[in-house]
Order: sequence, then C-alpha cells, then structure tokens
Amino acid sequence: MDQEAPTNPDLVAPLLGVSEDDKSKIFDKGVSHLTVFQTPDRLFESLDYEIIENDLFKQDWRARKKEEVFLYIVTKWAFAFLTGFIIGAAALIINFSVENIAGAKWLVASSYMTSGRTMTAFAIFTALNTGLVFLGAAMTVYLAPSAAGSGVPESKAYLNGIDAPRILEPITMVIKLLGSICVVSAGLYLGKEGPLIHIGSCVAYFLGQGGSLRYHMNWRWLRVFKNDRDRRDLVTCGCAGGVAAAFRAPIGGVLFALEEVTSWWRSALLWRAFFTTAVVAVMLQLGKQFCAQGICGLFGEGGLIMFDISHAYGQFGLLDLFPVVILGVLGGILGSVFNKLNTRVTKCYIYWYLRKPPCVKVIHACLMAILTSACCFWLPFLVKCRPCPDLSDIPGYKCPTHGQTGNFKGFNCPAGQYNDLAGLFFATKDDAVRNLFSFKTYREYHYRSILVFFGVSFIFSLITYGIAVPSGLFIPLIINGASLGRLVGMIMTTTTGNKMDEGYFAVLGAAAFLGGTMRMTVSLCVILLELTNNMLMLPMIMLVLLIAKTVGDIFNSAIWEMYVKIKGYPILEAKPEPFMQQLTAKDAVTTSVVSLSPVEQVSTVLMVLRNTTHNAFPVIGESSTTGRKVFLGLVLRSHLLVLLKNKAFHYASSGSAENSKMLQFTDFAKPATGKSLKIEDIDLRPEEELEFINVRHITNGSPYTVLESASLAKAYTLFRDLGLRHLCVVPREPEEEPIIGVLTRHNFLHENLQNLFPYLMPKKQAAGKTILM
Amino acid sequence: MDQEAPTNPDLVAPLLGVSEDDKSKIFDKGVSHLTVFQTPDRLFESLDYEIIENDLFKQDWRARKKEEVFLYIVTKWAFAFLTGFIIGAAALIINFSVENIAGAKWLVASSYMTSGRTMTAFAIFTALNTGLVFLGAAMTVYLAPSAAGSGVPESKAYLNGIDAPRILEPITMVIKLLGSICVVSAGLYLGKEGPLIHIGSCVAYFLGQGGSLRYHMNWRWLRVFKNDRDRRDLVTCGCAGGVAAAFRAPIGGVLFALEEVTSWWRSALLWRAFFTTAVVAVMLQLGKQFCAQGICGLFGEGGLIMFDISHAYGQFGLLDLFPVVILGVLGGILGSVFNKLNTRVTKCYIYWYLRKPPCVKVIHACLMAILTSACCFWLPFLVKCRPCPDLSDIPGYKCPTHGQTGNFKGFNCPAGQYNDLAGLFFATKDDAVRNLFSFKTYREYHYRSILVFFGVSFIFSLITYGIAVPSGLFIPLIINGASLGRLVGMIMTTTTGNKMDEGYFAVLGAAAFLGGTMRMTVSLCVILLELTNNMLMLPMIMLVLLIAKTVGDIFNSAIWEMYVKIKGYPILEAKPEPFMQQLTAKDAVTTSVVSLSPVEQVSTVLMVLRNTTHNAFPVIGESSTTGRKVFLGLVLRSHLLVLLKNKAFHYASSGSAENSKMLQFTDFAKPATGKSLKIEDIDLRPEEELEFINVRHITNGSPYTVLESASLAKAYTLFRDLGLRHLCVVPREPEEEPIIGVLTRHNFLHENLQNLFPYLMPKKQAAGKTILM
Repeated sequence: MDQEAPTNPDLVAPLLGVSEDDKSKIFDKGVSHLTVFQTPDRLFESLDYEIIENDLFKQDWRARKKEEVFLYIVTKWAFAFLTGFIIGAAALIINFSVENIAGAKWLVASSYMTSGRTMTAFAIFTALNTGLVFLGAAMTVYLAPSAAGSGVPESKAYLNGIDAPRILEPITMVIKLLGSICVVSAGLYLGKEGPLIHIGSCVAYFLGQGGSLRYHMNWRWLRVFKNDRDRRDLVTCGCAGGVAAAFRAPIGGVLFALEEVTSWWRSALLWRAFFTTAVVAVMLQLGKQFCAQGICGLFGEGGLIMFDISHAYGQFGLLDLFPVVILGVLGGILGSVFNKLNTRVTKCYIYWYLRKPPCVKVIHACLMAILTSACCFWLPFLVKCRPCPDLSDIPGYKCPTHGQTGNFKGFNCPAGQYNDLAGLFFATKDDAVRNLFSFKTYREYHYRSILVFFGVSFIFSLITYGIAVPSGLFIPLIINGASLGRLVGMIMTTTTGNKMDEGYFAVLGAAAFLGGTMRMTVSLCVILLELTNNMLMLPMIMLVLLIAKTVGDIFNSAIWEMYVKIKGYPILEAKPEPFMQQLTAKDAVTTSVVSLSPVEQVSTVLMVLRNTTHNAFPVIGESSTTGRKVFLGLVLRSHLLVLLKNKAFHYASSGSAENSKMLQFTDFAKPATGKSLKIEDIDLRPEEELEFINVRHITNGSPYTVLESASLAKAYTLFRDLGLRHLCVVPREPEEEPIIGVLTRHNFLHENLQNLFPYLMPKKQAAGKTILM
Repeated sequence: MDQEAPTNPDLVAPLLGVSEDDKSKIFDKGVSHLTVFQTPDRLFESLDYEIIENDLFKQDWRARKKEEVFLYIVTKWAFAFLTGFIIGAAALIINFSVENIAGAKWLVASSYMTSGRTMTAFAIFTALNTGLVFLGAAMTVYLAPSAAGSGVPESKAYLNGIDAPRILEPITMVIKLLGSICVVSAGLYLGKEGPLIHIGSCVAYFLGQGGSLRYHMNWRWLRVFKNDRDRRDLVTCGCAGGVAAAFRAPIGGVLFALEEVTSWWRSALLWRAFFTTAVVAVMLQLGKQFCAQGICGLFGEGGLIMFDISHAYGQFGLLDLFPVVILGVLGGILGSVFNKLNTRVTKCYIYWYLRKPPCVKVIHACLMAILTSACCFWLPFLVKCRPCPDLSDIPGYKCPTHGQTGNFKGFNCPAGQYNDLAGLFFATKDDAVRNLFSFKTYREYHYRSILVFFGVSFIFSLITYGIAVPSGLFIPLIINGASLGRLVGMIMTTTTGNKMDEGYFAVLGAAAFLGGTMRMTVSLCVILLELTNNMLMLPMIMLVLLIAKTVGDIFNSAIWEMYVKIKGYPILEAKPEPFMQQLTAKDAVTTSVVSLSPVEQVSTVLMVLRNTTHNAFPVIGESSTTGRKVFLGLVLRSHLLVLLKNKAFHYASSGSAENSKMLQFTDFAKPATGKSLKIEDIDLRPEEELEFINVRHITNGSPYTVLESASLAKAYTLFRDLGLRHLCVVPREPEEEPIIGVLTRHNFLHENLQNLFPYLMPKKQAAGKTILM
C-alpha cells in the first residue's frame, strides 16, 4: 500500500534505453554513477509532512510550555542562521581554492608561453588539469558516487516529499565540495553553482537531523526537529542559501527555491529563507572585504562570481525590441536542442558505464580533461593576431595582457596585438563570461572567433555534464548564451546600426539560453540582475526570458524535469493530469486494506508488519451503539515499531491505557532517515508475543479521506496540495468494511495509472498541460 | 450554511468601539466612508474556486478542441498584457498630472515668495491645496465612497475568496485615479502607491468579468473567464502590476502580491504576474523616455518615483552592524506604535462620521489640507538660514535653489544661504524623500530641523490616512523612516565616527519603518532595491527589515491585517488556530442540512431556495442495492437557478436525461458579481411548479469531505489550502442521514467559534501564533 517505488526496473529501464539483459544489472549491482542506481535495494519512501494528530500529540500540545515554544522558535532561527553561515563558508572555501589553484595554473602556463616554450606550457597545463580531474573523479566514484552531477534534481525530489537518504549525506557534501574545487579549477565546462545548491541542501539536512549517526556526528540535544515538516523547511532554506552563495544573489536564491525547487511554500518560510540568504550574502561580503587586503593569495576581488556592469547603458527604444525577440527565439530553440542532446548523451554514458568497472568513469573524466585542455590551448593559435584598439575611455584598459585575467590577451601575439580567442579559451570560465559581458569593447572579437568559441563551448557543455564528477550547468549555459548573444549583437550593430552595446547583447543572450534550457523566469531574471548589478536591464531581460521559455516549451520540458525523469524520482507535479477526471479514487486503489483493531495481540501485529510493506494501517473498531465496524484512524508502521521496541504491552485484551503513561510523545519523534526502527530490530520473547498492544493513543484520528466516488483529479489535488503520505478512501454507502483503501504516492504516478488504464491516456493531453499555463 | 457574514454588527461593533445605539446606525444607514459599511444589506459571499466536477463539466472537457484550449490560453495572456498596459497608462496619467499640477503650484508659490509677497504666496498655496482636496474628497464621498483609503485590504480580501462587489467596480477605479491625482498634488501626507494597487485590482477585475453590465460596458465575446479561479489569477496579476507601477519595481510587485496580498499561489501564476509587471515596466520606461524630450510640461524626468542612489557607497564592516540594529529596533517600536495610533485614529473618524452628514467628511478633508499647507509653509520660517556648503563633487550641485525641486532651497534666505527645512516641507513628498536619501550631503540638516520634520510628518501621517480620500501609506511611512534614519545617522557619524553616509542611514531608516508597520520582508527589500537601484545595499536592508519585523511583531500585527479586521472582512489565515485541534469537524457544524433528491418537484426546489440562504445543497439519493440513503454530491444554488430560469423541467418524476441536452456547460458559467440570478428573477406559472427538475447532471460528484471525527484544525487546513467554499462533513458510522453538515467560511471564523466555545480560547495562543513563525 505504501510501497512508493517507481524504481521498478520495468518503468525506468525504457527511459534509459536499457535492454532486458542490462536491466537486472542496473538494479542488482547499482553500478551507475547516477544517484538512483546507487540505491537499488532501497525503495523510495515518502516523507511524513502531515501532522499526526493522535492523543499523544494533543496531550503534548496542551502541556507545552511557553518556554518550550520559544525555544523551538529560537532553534528554528538558529538553524537557519547556521545553515547560512556554513553555506557561506563553503562558498568562500570553494571560491578561494578555485581562484588560487586555477590562478597559479594560468600563471605558470602563461610564463612558459611568454618565454616561447609552447610545448612545455601545454604539457604542464594539461598535466595539471588532468591531475585535478583525476582527483575529483576518483573521489566521486569511489567515495560518494551520489556527489556526481548537479544535485538540483535531488534537492527537488527531497522537497517533493521523496525520502532518498544517500543523496543528502555528509560524505556527499564533502566530496561535492572537494570535487567541485578540483574540476572547476581544471577548467572543465562545468560550474560550481549546481553543486553549491546541493551542498546547501546537505548542510540543512545534516543540521535538521541533529547530525549523522552513521558518521558518529550527532548531538542528541539538537534533535528538536522531530518531524519531516521542519526538516523540509530547513532544506528549503538550504537550497535558497546555496543559490545565494553560488551567484551572490540573495533574492534570486529565495526565488529560485520558490520557483524551481520546492513543492510547498508558506509566507512564513519566505521570511526564513530570506534570512538564510541574507546571512550568506553578509558572509560573502565580509569574506570579499577581508581578501581585498591581498592576504588571500590570488583570490583578490574577482573570486566571487559577479559580472558587474552597473555602469552600462540601460535605455532602450521600441526598435531595440526586434533583436531581443530574435535572441529570445534563438535561445528557446537552441535551449531545447541542448536539453534533448544533453540528456541523450547522459543516458548513453549511463548505459556505457553499466558494462564497465568503475575505473572507466575516472579514465573517461581524465580523457575529457585532456581534450578540453587541448582545445583551450591550441584553438587560439588558429586565429590571427589583431591590433590593440584604442579604448582609453574604459577604466583599467590594458592591451595586450599576459597573465591570469584580462580582456585582451597577448598569448602568442607580438606587442601591440592581441589574440581574441585566447581571452575566451585561455581563461577561467568566470573570466570568459566577464570578457563576453564587457561593455564598450566594440568589435573586440572577430565573427569567426566568436563562432568557433560558441560551437566548441556548446559541444563541450553537452558532453561534459554527464561524467562522474560534481558538475553544474549554469556557467556552461551562460557561456553558450553570452557568446551567442555577442554574435547576434555583432551582426545587429553592423547590419541594422542598432546602438545597443555588444556586451548588453551578451547578457541578453545568456538570459535567452538559460531561459530556453531551465524554463524559469522570475528567479533567473533576478539572478541575472544581481549578477550584473544593473537594474535598468530588467525589462529587456524579462522579455527575452519570457520568449525563450515560451519557445522552448513548445519542443520539450525543462532540463531539470528531464533529469528528474531519468533518475526515476517519483515526483508529483503541481496539477493533476486531465485524464484523472475520468477516474474515481476507488479506481486507483490497487492493494487490499490490511487493518488493525484498537487492541491486537502482539503476534498479530508482528505478522502484519512482517508480511506487508505498508507504512500505515487503518484502525478499525466497533461502534458501541450499533456494533458495526468503524474507521478510527491511521496508525503508522514506525509508531507501531516504537511500541513494540519499548514493549508497551498489556496482559489482557481489554488494553487499559497504562502504556500511554509509559511512552511520551517525544518517544515517537521521527528519527533521521536510515535511523528508523525496522521490524528486524524487534526481539521479543515468545510469551511477550501473546500479550496485547493498544494502538488507540497513537492512532491519528483525523486522517484525510475521500469518498470512493470522488474523481481522482480531486483526490490528487488534495494529496498533492496538502503534502500527504496516505489518503484514505472511504465508501459512499455503508459496507462491511468502513475503508476501501489507502492511496499513496505510488497510486498517483503516471506510469502506474498508465499500466492500469492504458486506454485513458489521451493524445490531446500534452496541449493543455504545460505550454503557457 | 453559507451565510459567510461576519458583518454581524455584534461582531464588528466592539472593534470600532461603537455603542449599542450607534450600532444599528452603521448597519442600517451605511453612512461610513469605509467600504464594509457601504454594503450593510449585502452579506459577504465566498468565491467558487473549486472546480465543480459535474457531468456537464466532464462532457465539456472531453469535447474541448485543441483550438479552444489554445484560444483560452491566448486570452489569458492577452488579458495579462492588457492589464499591464492599462495599469501602466494609469500610472503615467497619475504621475504626469501630479507632476504638472504640483509643479505649477510650487512655481507660483515660489515666485511670490521670491518677490517678497509671502502672505500672498501662502494664500494662493493654501487655496490651491484646499481646492484640490475639496475636489478629491467630494468625488470620493458622493460618487464612490469605496475609493477612500488605500485599497490594499480590499484586494487582500478579494484574493482570500471574499466576494465584495462594490470595492472593485469601475467607478471606484476612476474616482480612485482622479482623487489620487488631486490629493497627492495637494501635498497631503498621502501616497499614490496604495491607490495604484487598488486600481490594478480593479482593472483586472473589470477585464476578468468581460466588462461591466452596470455601466453598460460589457462585451459578450470577452466572457471566456467563466470562473472565479481565472478571475482570481487575473486580479493577482493586477495587484502585482499595481505595485510595479507604483514603485517602478517589477520584481518587487510580483513579490508583494505573493507575500502580502494573495492567499493562493502557483508557479504558473508567478510567470504571468511577472509578465504583467514587465509590461508595466516597459510602459513606464517608454513614457519616461517620451517625456524626457520635454514635451510633457513639468513632468520631465522626476515624475516616476525613483530615488536613484546607484552611485553610492555600498561597503560595510562588522562595526556598521551596530547602528543598523539600533535602526531596526527603533523602526519596529515606532512602527508598531504607528499601527496602534493610526488604526485608533481611523476608528475615531469612522465613529465620528457616523453621526454626521456626508459633507462633514469633505469639510474635514479640506481642514486637513489647510492645516497641512500652513505647517508646510510656515514651519520653515522657524529655522535659521544656513550657509551653502561646498559640495562641488556632487554632480549638478546648486545652492540655493528657487523653484520646483532642489536639495538646498533658498526659500526666505539671502543669496549664499539655504533653508534646510524648506527642502523638506516646501516640496512634493517625492522630492522630500529624494532629499533625505541624498548622498554626500553631509550635515545638510540641522538636528532640530530633522527632528521637527520627523515629528510633524509622524503626526500628519497618523491623522491623514483615515480621511475620505484615496490615500496610500507607503510614502508617508518612507518619509517618517527616512527622517528617522537620517537623524540616527547624524548622531552616529558624529558620536561614533561611523563612516556610512547619512543618505545610507535614511534608506535603512525607511526600510526599518516600513518593516515595522507592514511586517513584510522580501517584497519590501526588493522594492527598496528597485527604488534606489543599488544592489550593494541588499544585506543591510535585509537585516534591518528582519529586525524591525521581529520587534514589531512582539507588540501587534501588521497594519493591513489591522485594517482588514476593522473593515470586517472574514479573511481566513494561512494556518488554523491551535485551539481548533481540540474541536472536531462536527462541532463546527451550526446549521442543519437541507438536502435535495436527484429529482425534485419544482415547487420543492423553489421553497428550499426561498427559505434558506444556503448556496449549496447536498444531493441525497437511494442506493440501488440496499435502498439506503446515499450522498451523491453538492449542487450549487446558482446552478439550480439556471435550471429554473431556463425551465429545464420534466413532466414525470422519473426525470429522464432530456434536459441535459437542452443546457450546455457554458450556460452554467458563473456570471460576474452582482449579475447572478436571484430567486426573485424566477417567474413560473403554477402548472410549471408541479413539474420535476433533475439535478443529477449538475451535481458535483466529488465534493471534498471530512469525517465528523476529524479535528477542526485538519478540516481548516483542507478548506483553506484548497480554497474551498463548501466542505461536507460525513458521518463515521452509518447513520440515517449520509451527511451531517456543510462547513463554510463562516464556520471557521474565530469570532463564531469563540461564541460557540468560549472556554476554548486559550491564553497562550498568542505566543505560538504569529511571532517569529
């Protein structure tokens, strides 16, 4: 009944294009690097967001003192603060390390270049990159395979109510952090943004559980967050904090969490998430000011991703709308192409990795590093050197530059000339974006150079994301979009005499490409504004995002949604699908009810727990007046196990209330994932099994119910909007049994309903579903 | 059962402190200027947000063509565009008119001042102001009394599901617009922001209804928005657009609607609201660029509220946190004091107005105009002239200035000197804010001047809001906060040597005061950032808002919430109150069920409709197998009336399905408020009353239900989160009647539950409720 498990090989395998032979491999060996396949033995469970209103809860609530309420609130806020603090620190560590490692790498390579020893420079450059990637990939593959990828789908799944424990464990967080540093320093076409979001979720998850038993880091006194609701709220804050740290965009972070990641939201949570991101922002600001004194090595000013173009031109006329529309449409089309190809490449990788030992993943990553290094190093040699332009009105203008950063790189050129492609390829990804966004650098790049850069970046961002290292998609997408935008801008300004700056076009291009892939609007817009610190660009960015999303939605769905599907997370969408109107709640009930009486013999309870996988059991009593069966409520498997473990038994079947005195509400607090009791933990003597157990006081007397005749669409709305785990279906007419079944996440999933009612999947469903709604 | 009416005099009167004698007066005569008292005869109804899944709906859905779905979506977006366009135009009209009228007024007064004719200047100044206010107040009082006040509580109430038709009518919108122009030009301590939000809601409401029958402006073909859900969404967009127009803050607008005004929200709506605000932003930008050519009279650049301080210093250290905390605490305390006093003054006004003819309200407003003019004119004479400082590093610095705007007003001072108080009092409110926010103008104001200004502004903003004109609170609050902040800044920079600019303190002070009164966080923060166009101030503004809200929440609730209470709107809060856990759903059922059979004689239906005020009736049939009564679903009063009006009758009680052929789903579309059928509209011949009516096909077969034993808290969550109008309570044990009652908004209201269960209102409830949650 509660076997919320779409990780059924038959359901997931076709998505991956896996043959019958390999199917068992995936799920038996768990050899893929993608998270879901890590836990083939563990079926996904749902989280308990509903308040279990049983007698103990009510007693506890009535007995709660003012000080306890206050302490609870203080703890909530303290955790939000701590989450922000740790995320801020993690972001500083990543940025500090990346800037120093990558900076040192560029300096060494450049110095060899300048002294004419090109081959040595290349060898050192490639060796350093490959070494870093080897480190990152090996850590990921052997220590925490779930640290691979961006982690956004994982955070999304958790906040939709899916309990997939491994993905938010502390080891994942640590490897994600270290691995990110390695691969970003190595200059792969990856970002640190997605991983930072995952790190944020992990931090919050870790704190919300009061530490981790597995790694002997738990503090009992911290266990005030006794329920999944509070943990969910904290993880939401963590996500927002992660985005805020990634882009130094506190408002964008909150909006990202709201628009993309969470499934439930409250106004009160808005406030706490905002607090977390504020803490992150303050941390980053202080860190930056601290390092501005020059004591952080090569960290300096530029470390935190921020493409400040606040001084730039922000006026626009009606005529400027034309290129913006073109960019939006281009972004939408190329974005959906990217989604399609990127997910296909990742699927191929998964399929390929399945047949090989883990070391293949490491070798693959290293090969990717060598390939990337070769392209970045040799491609600039293909273009001609260009004479330095006179741009003395730009503050700090220097041409050519030799070293870590700079717009006009000397590279292999003589004095007074620069290599335009080197400024893009032979630089960190952040610097490349900064160069593309640069204003007033009219005609800095040749058409051919920017076209080559766009093509190579597009291909590399397609083939890099799926390898077994922590990888974010934001920066590659921004690079693709910015080069596309700059290209369009160059064409526009030449042919139509448009007066908008090329840098402005680059920003709009980045917005278009992001919008075309991620299909977000408000949060992307705010993130871009916060990144560029220029409010006046707002209307144009909004417009381009709206167009790109609309165009993209015609072809396929957002990239995170596609990855959620690939990973097999049974996410419930916000709205029921139209065909559900034609089904009733009763139609979706697939398993028969296993119910308990208010007082049962221990042996019966044990048998029920051993022979079912249900996580909740209806309690059915007898009416004192009519003697008919009456539905009293639901009792959770986890609560029954607590009773059994504590041996709260009675000698007689009358079941007096004495055991309610023995156990408190807090004894039933939900432990952290993986720490919950299992039926195997129960060890009873034979005579104890003959005793009786009274479940009345732990029965949730107010479970949500629907009538059997209610449409499934309505039941879905109820289930999804209230974040339920169990929804009881009750008969419309009095019947023998007062309950017909219990619906869970499993029963509402598209795949399962499709199996049950294949004729109901209508063709027109697609039209009304996502586009433009 | 559906009499959602807390406008019960007994409930509202104590809030107003009205005596028994006057109580009848309020509700009989409807003489107050506040909206609720305008409609004493009309009880508040709830809106129908639930999808009525009856047979006709399902048939219609199955028959719906792709083109129809597409048309529907296009219309939705077209309406969102149109809403934004009209709001943008309205904002431009207001700003254009205010700048021209107020500008001309200041120019005339200044020219008389300069020529030494002070008394003439004062007379003309006062006469103009009073004339404008007379116009505004007279329009409001005699044409559209519901245009008084800000309109935020009204929008909030509508979006919570309360149907209060008058408040969003076209006439209200027109008077709000014209009245706003008058009173803002007259220089009262009022803003145009709240009214713009109300105007936004009105525009959306008007469009969503397909025009207005009452004013002969309706287009039948526009009636595609046939349900309250779509109308609600559009009004949400309208609200967001209004805020965006008020502050030229598109993102802030969306967030304001999300955080403060709406009760339900979807990710899809976020997108559409964002589109609306983008349209508004583009409109304003284009309007501004058009007027920058100098063809809009005195409009020029400054018309749209925007206090650009983008060039200002944004760094901060740990030590700067100290004055920020002080400001936050001060803002919280003074904000809650303001809330308390402001609502009390408004209550006094209401009480006073009750006993007087309407012209008293106009006279009162005019007196307020004279008083304000006198203060603004004469107070600057009390201070000494100060020598012009040397601030040549500020671009466009000029001292002293004589005319419309300017930081350093000459006023009554000789050349080379300026009057610091004149720059604040003898200027439009927007200019005063701009002057307070100005950077690098170190020591521009004397302590005494800023203290006098703060005191006078505080008192005027307290006593002005309640008068019978369209009035917004934002600008007065910003003025109070900015002067407070500047004062604190002056003390800080002198005593502690703090290096933050006084203008920076003024911005933080404005944030603190707004946070302390309105208790919003994210949206206020974004609005302030968009107003000041300086992203680097973000962390500090966030911090000060959090502190101010937290401190304010200790003392009382947010100002809009207090006004919602005063106006008696039966708003359902997001969370159930804790005592509801101790009640069951059955406890809250107050009225007995009036049910119908699937086929009823017309006379019976008529009798039921005439003798009850219920808006929905359970349909109870007989089981074909057992012959027991079975609950089939709910039928709405409005749908029954449609059947009766169209005479869809049968001759026999067998009730064959023929009438379902006669009427289509669209015939049951919900008409705009005030246009719905009433029982008085039904005119039947006696022989028709003997015929039969079949309600089966219009019965919503999937109404939401709760078991009688479910806790009221759970029922509340279900009712509120899903936006229901009716919630059926079904028995747990089979009983004679298959339904126990129907819960509506009325049954969940605090006041009603308090009357029923006075002993249950716990004292500790306050602690856990709002503070810091």
